Amino acid sequence: MTSMQAPLLLTPGPLTTTARTKNAMLHDWGSWDGDFNALTARLGRRLLSIIDGGDNYACVPLQGSGTFAVEAAIGTLMPRDGKLLVLVNGAYGKRMAQLTAMMGRRVDVADFGETSPVDPAVVRERLAADPDITHVGVIYCETSTGILNPLADIAHEVAAAGRKLVIDAMSAFGALPLSCRELAFEAVVGSSNKCLEGVPGMGFVLARTDALEQAEGRSHSLSLDLHDQWRYMSRTGQWRYTPPTHVVAAFDCALDQYEEQGGQPSRLARYEANCETLIDGLAAIGLRSFLPSSIQAPIIVTVHAPDHPNWNFTEFYRRVKEHGVILYPGKLTAVETFRVGCIGAIDSGDMERGVAAIASVLADMGMQTN
Amino acid sequence: MTSMQAPLLLTPGPLTTTARTKNAMLHDWGSWDGDFNALTARLGRRLLSIIDGGDNYACVPLQGSGTFAVEAAIGTLMPRDGKLLVLVNGAYGKRMAQLTAMMGRRVDVADFGETSPVDPAVVRERLAADPDITHVGVIYCETSTGILNPLADIAHEVAAAGRKLVIDAMSAFGALPLSCRELAFEAVVGSSNKCLEGVPGMGFVLARTDALEQAEGRSHSLSLDLHDQWRYMSRTGQWRYTPPTHVVAAFDCALDQYEEQGGQPSRLARYEANCETLIDGLAAIGLRSFLPSSIQAPIIVTVHAPDHPNWNFTEFYRRVKEHGVILYPGKLTAVETFRVGCIGAIDSGDMERGVAAIASVLADMGMQTN
Ligand SMILES: Cc1ncc(COP(=O)(O)O)c(C=O)c1O
Ligand SMILES: Cc1ncc(COP(=O)(O)O)c(C=O)c1O
Repeated sequence: MTSMQAPLLLTPGPLTTTARTKNAMLHDWGSWDGDFNALTARLGRRLLSIIDGGDNYACVPLQGSGTFAVEAAIGTLMPRDGKLLVLVNGAYGKRMAQLTAMMGRRVDVADFGETSPVDPAVVRERLAADPDITHVGVIYCETSTGILNPLADIAHEVAAAGRKLVIDAMSAFGALPLSCRELAFEAVVGSSNKCLEGVPGMGFVLARTDALEQAEGRSHSLSLDLHDQWRYMSRTGQWRYTPPTHVVAAFDCALDQYEEQGGQPSRLARYEANCETLIDGLAAIGLRSFLPSSIQAPIIVTVHAPDHPNWNFTEFYRRVKEHGVILYPGKLTAVETFRVGCIGAIDSGDMERGVAAIASVLADMGMQTN
Repeated sequence: MTSMQAPLLLTPGPLTTTARTKNAMLHDWGSWDGDFNALTARLGRRLLSIIDGGDNYACVPLQGSGTFAVEAAIGTLMPRDGKLLVLVNGAYGKRMAQLTAMMGRRVDVADFGETSPVDPAVVRERLAADPDITHVGVIYCETSTGILNPLADIAHEVAAAGRKLVIDAMSAFGALPLSCRELAFEAVVGSSNKCLEGVPGMGFVLARTDALEQAEGRSHSLSLDLHDQWRYMSRTGQWRYTPPTHVVAAFDCALDQYEEQGGQPSRLARYEANCETLIDGLAAIGLRSFLPSSIQAPIIVTVHAPDHPNWNFTEFYRRVKEHGVILYPGKLTAVETFRVGCIGAIDSGDMERGVAAIASVLADMGMQTN
């Protein structure tokens, strides 16, 4: 089976992980055991240190995918009578608004389309115009296109207006800079299987401790009650319900490697090199990336499909996969695109391999573009 | 490190899994890829075949721990104006009632204490007395003690009263018999890391297709919306949000072994042998199991702590662990107990090893009881 030969995942997560990370799953942990509690505690400390979290923030890990952690953060940190303004420029912003409405809270959207970053001036105006807004939600890197939002400027406007910021940094956390010494935010949400290069199965919320303290009884959902998860974990050292023990162990091992490799600056440098190699390589075979480089996060690149009658994503994907490379579909509604991830345990050489596979398939499909 | 020498987990899950199951996690799957979709589809078919599900039921897997799947089942399958009667005889029944109240639905409890199985005659009376009750929730094996509830008789009363049954079979699924040819139920909830011997990180709900069809727009939570998960998966073959790919692959591999070994009857036989070896072995060293054998499920055994001034669970646990065996704390409120799991990739020889470790530690702690 082709897929057992370890294809290269050029995807935004789940992504390519190291053998060492996967090997950390070859052990069964008791979820009630002290050794596992120590592992959980260490993981929390490490995630907090990435944002310079110190004593003002706590790490609350949560079972499930990243969306579960976003929902838990909003449902727990925002009072029932609060109101969220979501800054939307893609699918993940839309999802944050949708999950807030579903839990029965007030939510409004500032929509910037699919191709522009969030404009901090608009944030200022919206906050000035609506005093009911208590919280603002933003996506650091909007993975549906790869747009980098101007987080520092947004955080500045939110703080200046006396509101609270919840950051979905799912696809950015650990690679793009994010320090609570430099920005004010209530909480940031991440997951195990993006830039920290673990396997999927858990998310986490790094939240202000004072916000968590005030959050009792707010959650619409027992499973997603971050306050309860945090209190229980503070008291017992354990997860409230069965943790994904193997995933947690792999995540901890991935963080060993993250720290050994030099942490956030070197993770960012590697991804920037990956992104540059990719964009240059694609340009050389006539494929254009969708975003101007000024707003392109080095996380995932949206690529215009060749403007050619032979184009067919399914067939293109299948053939590229035969070369051992897994791509990702586009998520834009109006333009025909595909996406290529720059994150995971991969380097520039892997990006070159990806570009070569794409070039060869385009030629085979009669779409040589230069 | 002691813990890296693969201790024997005599716990109710996460539990001891085979090397083969863990090895299935050594591959990174693309969550959007056809190979992974095929794996998800096969998993669903296999889980359905365990309950003889055929066309009337659908399998909806869900990210997160088992509690998430229970909450999703109630929140999606019960109408907003429905009312749930939960049959409680332990912590997991209480939790089902709690999560239903938290999502803002009407819930009532029939409480049978901590030491008795659910009484079907009481179920009949309660349903006759309250026509508002639309759904009944029951725990097949109440893992907090190990009590086996009389599922067939309960299902009979619920069906006779024209109500709908939701079964939390978390710690029973795959070992205790459960067929939709023999009992009427709306949905049954299980997870990857109990009797099917996978690793933790996902739950699943096997629900009547007609119930799922009617369930649109009911969920209090986007992440836990089973209808949406089911519709999306039916349409695309994919999980709605990032699946725990490695956990899913391990689960599929665990099901290979389940089928090779003879499925439910032989899984039950092995666990019954484990349970008998354990109880007999403990009796021989003067330790009494808490439940009468008539209501003891062969899943987990609650054991009276020795009535001795030297007893101290923490110390006992630590010393047994030095022998490479991980036990589980008691969950009873009134009586001092500990628990020993009979499930996982373990056999009677392992149970003997567990008993020997316990005997040796009791002697070392000066609590020789016979
Ligand atoms: C920015 C962002 N938010 C949320 C999510 C949702 O995460 P998950 O698919 O793990 O639920 C993603 C996933 O790619 C993401 O990139
Ligand atoms: C009967 C029962 N229900 C629910 C649960 C909760 O499962 P989880 O800890 O995976 O959330 C358990 C866990 O042991 C259980 O035994």
